[in-house]
Amino acid sequence: MFKRKRIVIALGGNALGDTLPEQMIAVKSTAQALCDLIEEGHQVVVVHGNGPQVGMINNAMSALSREDANQPNTPLSVCVAMSQAYIGYDLQNALREELRKRGFMRTPVVTVVTQVRVDENDPAFKNPSKPIGRFLTKEDAQFQTKAYGHIMKEDAGRGYRRVVASPKPVEIVEMDAINSLVDAGKIVITCGGGGIPVVLKEDHLKGASAVIDKDFASALLARELGADMLIILTAVEKVAVNFGKENEEWISDMSVADAKRYIAEGQFAPGSMLPKVQAAVEFAESGTDRTAMITLLSKAKDGLKGETGTVIHL
Amino acid sequence: MFKRKRIVIALGGNALGDTLPEQMIAVKSTAQALCDLIEEGHQVVVVHGNGPQVGMINNAMSALSREDANQPNTPLSVCVAMSQAYIGYDLQNALREELRKRGFMRTPVVTVVTQVRVDENDPAFKNPSKPIGRFLTKEDAQFQTKAYGHIMKEDAGRGYRRVVASPKPVEIVEMDAINSLVDAGKIVITCGGGGIPVVLKEDHLKGASAVIDKDFASALLARELGADMLIILTAVEKVAVNFGKENEEWISDMSVADAKRYIAEGQFAPGSMLPKVQAAVEFAESGTDRTAMITLLSKAKDGLKGETGTVIHL
Repeated sequence: MFKRKRIVIALGGNALGDTLPEQMIAVKSTAQALCDLIEEGHQVVVVHGNGPQVGMINNAMSALSREDANQPNTPLSVCVAMSQAYIGYDLQNALREELRKRGFMRTPVVTVVTQVRVDENDPAFKNPSKPIGRFLTKEDAQFQTKAYGHIMKEDAGRGYRRVVASPKPVEIVEMDAINSLVDAGKIVITCGGGGIPVVLKEDHLKGASAVIDKDFASALLARELGADMLIILTAVEKVAVNFGKENEEWISDMSVADAKRYIAEGQFAPGSMLPKVQAAVEFAESGTDRTAMITLLSKAKDGLKGETGTVIHL
Repeated sequence: MFKRKRIVIALGGNALGDTLPEQMIAVKSTAQALCDLIEEGHQVVVVHGNGPQVGMINNAMSALSREDANQPNTPLSVCVAMSQAYIGYDLQNALREELRKRGFMRTPVVTVVTQVRVDENDPAFKNPSKPIGRFLTKEDAQFQTKAYGHIMKEDAGRGYRRVVASPKPVEIVEMDAINSLVDAGKIVITCGGGGIPVVLKEDHLKGASAVIDKDFASALLARELGADMLIILTAVEKVAVNFGKENEEWISDMSVADAKRYIAEGQFAPGSMLPKVQAAVEFAESGTDRTAMITLLSKAKDGLKGETGTVIHL
């Protein structure tokens, strides 16, 4: 018997292209895959990454500061906010258009500017490690440190890049509004780029120099929404253990206990598959009726039918 | 007897400052004035302008294109989208903070990325007249025309500026989601900068090189929401007729018929008070239970009590 599922889907920012023309093409195939699920009757909530996009916006705002002395450098949190509208605008229109092509008369797609609170004592702030923006010369890197306090790291002989913290999400500030929209049957795009990172200072939400991992933000969102499923999209159809070795194995199904054992064995690459499996575990272990899946965008529909993907459950 | 009113408030983009630090200060007094109304029990929906902000973002994206050949010029519609998140993020936090200071435990403020459809046959597209962005030399202006097809106009000896169309809003694309949020009691920031201007091409919403007047967008929003009141904020406490003349008169109350007569007499400056009065008339004439008011931000509360401002009604 068919059960309508509430599904949170996390899309990679890299899959959305590096420039606006690339993005306008990329959102079309994304919209088709998402509409496949909507057409089957599921309720879909969309989270997207923003790695290349927030870097591009950060570069643009820095370029403006160099040209116009009145414009101070723009904090990363503001760049994340702008990236949510930059991506959401294209993505919501591609979704709307694809829904109309398939004969849906109502197309209530909406992008919510979303803040996600992080803990200012998160250890990630002591060890900023996520590179953003473009490669710089040593002089330009030193200027950024002096002028803006940015932390710059040399990156494998290719030049210097700004590194920022990637703290864990603690609370989705606009959860109340997101719940209302999802309950009312809207198709919501939220927590873009992992959310605008903010820390609580008394009553004030202060932007943080950070980029939140969108997979962890998706897991938190899925828990808060009481979703049935979290689908984390990536560049492979299934998760592998012993990757590249003789005993390589592509996993169709793993329990939370299995996943934790694999994590402890160091089976998954940090900054790549590891956070995806960790986020999947966080959601799956929050309830017996909650399942996470890791797969390709184009395989999400087949994955929901149990035909492919890696499923993680209690 | 107190009647809780549903109020759409239109804030000027110029009142939000030219830079991020200016904006962070400006949103505080804005939030105080808005919270005065919320504290009295009214339901507030916020629209803001984006003149300086969309110009700044447009400049930043152009600066990036000059530095990075891979980055094509960013359409104005995308810059408007980014300005909605740039302003909404600050404004929603200032509102949230002020509400908490006043003891509100729930602070469901939310910014919706909003598209507003315009008619591609709107005569405004034949006569672009709204200047945006900074002043350019003749060579730079010619380059923009050649490279991007921008229409540039010489501006009173101060250099060249890009001019864009300012068409009338026809439909708020995300109205369905906005209605859900307002009905659920959220404090919604929407139609920022008059909305992202789009035209309908079959099933596709295509970004338009335009900036929609935020006062007209507010009037449309107020009608669609069935609001009781539209408050258009400006730099004067009341509307004047015979402004600067011996028989100058500050108007407290005018009927739609009065307002239309004054408009026909040329009493209001185009690009300044005229569109505000026109937008007020559009809302007020849509129902006997609908009132528009034009006043200062700091006088909105007193205006609601009937103590100041210019009220426009059927």
